[in-house]
Amino acid sequence: MVISHSTAKIAEAVREYEGVKRKHDIGGMVRAFQIDAPQVVASFGEDAAVIKQDQNALLLAADGIWSRLMEVDPYWSGYCAVLVNIHDIAAMGGRPLAMVDVFSIADRTICDQVIRGMRDASLQFGVPIVGGHLHPDTPYSVIDLSILGIARLDSVIYSHTAAPGDHVIVAIDLDGRVHPSCALNWDSVTMKTGAYVRAQISLLQELAEAHLVTAGKDISNPGVIGSLGMMLEVSGMGAEIRVDAIPRPDLEKFNLSFEHWVRMYPGMGFVLTARPEHIEEVCRRFSAVGMTACVIGEVNASSSLTLTGADETVTVFDFAADGIMRLTSQ
Amino acid sequence: MVISHSTAKIAEAVREYEGVKRKHDIGGMVRAFQIDAPQVVASFGEDAAVIKQDQNALLLAADGIWSRLMEVDPYWSGYCAVLVNIHDIAAMGGRPLAMVDVFSIADRTICDQVIRGMRDASLQFGVPIVGGHLHPDTPYSVIDLSILGIARLDSVIYSHTAAPGDHVIVAIDLDGRVHPSCALNWDSVTMKTGAYVRAQISLLQELAEAHLVTAGKDISNPGVIGSLGMMLEVSGMGAEIRVDAIPRPDLEKFNLSFEHWVRMYPGMGFVLTARPEHIEEVCRRFSAVGMTACVIGEVNASSSLTLTGADETVTVFDFAADGIMRLTSQ
Repeated sequence: MVISHSTAKIAEAVREYEGVKRKHDIGGMVRAFQIDAPQVVASFGEDAAVIKQDQNALLLAADGIWSRLMEVDPYWSGYCAVLVNIHDIAAMGGRPLAMVDVFSIADRTICDQVIRGMRDASLQFGVPIVGGHLHPDTPYSVIDLSILGIARLDSVIYSHTAAPGDHVIVAIDLDGRVHPSCALNWDSVTMKTGAYVRAQISLLQELAEAHLVTAGKDISNPGVIGSLGMMLEVSGMGAEIRVDAIPRPDLEKFNLSFEHWVRMYPGMGFVLTARPEHIEEVCRRFSAVGMTACVIGEVNASSSLTLTGADETVTVFDFAADGIMRLTSQ
Repeated sequence: MVISHSTAKIAEAVREYEGVKRKHDIGGMVRAFQIDAPQVVASFGEDAAVIKQDQNALLLAADGIWSRLMEVDPYWSGYCAVLVNIHDIAAMGGRPLAMVDVFSIADRTICDQVIRGMRDASLQFGVPIVGGHLHPDTPYSVIDLSILGIARLDSVIYSHTAAPGDHVIVAIDLDGRVHPSCALNWDSVTMKTGAYVRAQISLLQELAEAHLVTAGKDISNPGVIGSLGMMLEVSGMGAEIRVDAIPRPDLEKFNLSFEHWVRMYPGMGFVLTARPEHIEEVCRRFSAVGMTACVIGEVNASSSLTLTGADETVTVFDFAADGIMRLTSQ
């Protein structure tokens, strides 16, 4: 495979990726729900909603699995449903407490495999599934999960708080594989012990309580640059990032192009911002739990995300003209 | 329409109703999820899971809408998704705090109507929708909601705590209509003010904090007798109930048979147990918020639910032979 490095091509691959484009409809939905509740500290645009309860932040999130993944690998779909929910809480600096599911089943074999995947991930990460709702008679198979987490109210990592001058850090566990069922999933988790992945999840809470980062988000389907773009969009900021700084596995070994890599769901990955004086400590702590953390650029007040490669600098997203989630316009 | 009152026919109508039978698969699913977490006080079998957090009980529940309802009335589906989640928290004696959704959309028109229903219910009941996940590109339309609530840990209403000698109370708001889209839904909510329905929801928390009831559950798709059956099943108890004592609207006016009425989702209905000395006070308080509460029978240690009509006494469920949710067998 030719390993392409045209910066414009990378930017286009990210921008036109369905994992990014399918976020466009979020804004319209958010505007439909008017929230007038004093206990709600943060909601849409964050990985989890934040509900104030005394000195605690109760964190509530929900995630479903893309139907295409359900079709190709029900076990991995069940596993991922748990994984992405746990990431939503970790990204907020929280401790995951419990999950509930809504499960619609058209096919018994699919059902059993999904449940096996959910159970394995639940046991590995130590987050119980405590209830939910079962539709045993639907014409489709869908698994939706919701998660409750908790953090100290003064130690929440938000998406909307990136500020000019902050450095952008990407942290990914590069010790993994391309998932055999899904070329767009980097699996760094299924082969690890519970202790190993729990240390990675706990680290985010430790970073939050030490106030070492200014903003953060888990890297999900939109990939590393798409997820950064979503974080910048809710922060009302822009950033300049560098192609060569983005952490990556041995692309040749895995026969991956860089355009493909930046669109992958990385299994265990976060994009964060931090003040320059905290970079070294943040990266050191990620390294200690087996994750590669690198500064890939800097936040600015420009409202566009630019990517600099060997050949040129291109704009990936111009939030003033067109957002990813389109939270505030239209 | 002939108003039939054969007790055996009523028992069969309840037992063979799909809203009841589709609960049979829950047990297998529950057994797949091993829960070994000290913070989880209660989980499957309850309307919401109970997670201990200091002196509070965090309540987490999830519910989806039956696909058949989505097909006939997307607005009412969205409204009901919110309603049933709020009932799950109320039934536990909790205060609903916030909801998150996972929404899969195949059709834009359906989407807009579902969102309108969700928003209207959210505003009416004063419980915000604070986040979630959107699949804009699925071959099906599904709305799943999850809810977070809170109660005092010493004032939770559980399903599994009904005890011999307790009286069974059914409380329903009979001031309503058969929903025009769904003959199995009794709608007592859409035409009421926010203050009215919020007082009904709050009452359950007041009953819990005054320790006036011993167990409780919201009346959902399995109807009044089916929901009581589920509560008795998790309590490991039986009960004797009387046909004539079950509260009902003017059946002739609404052209409803009694067999039909007992299978209906009542919009705002709870089945509770209480010690005999608290019955009067419980019923008085329900009456004060516009709900009809009646003692319909008594809990016993028999593990079967029997129904006595004018003609005979029949067994509706024999939990020793065959459960509804089948939580402990097979």
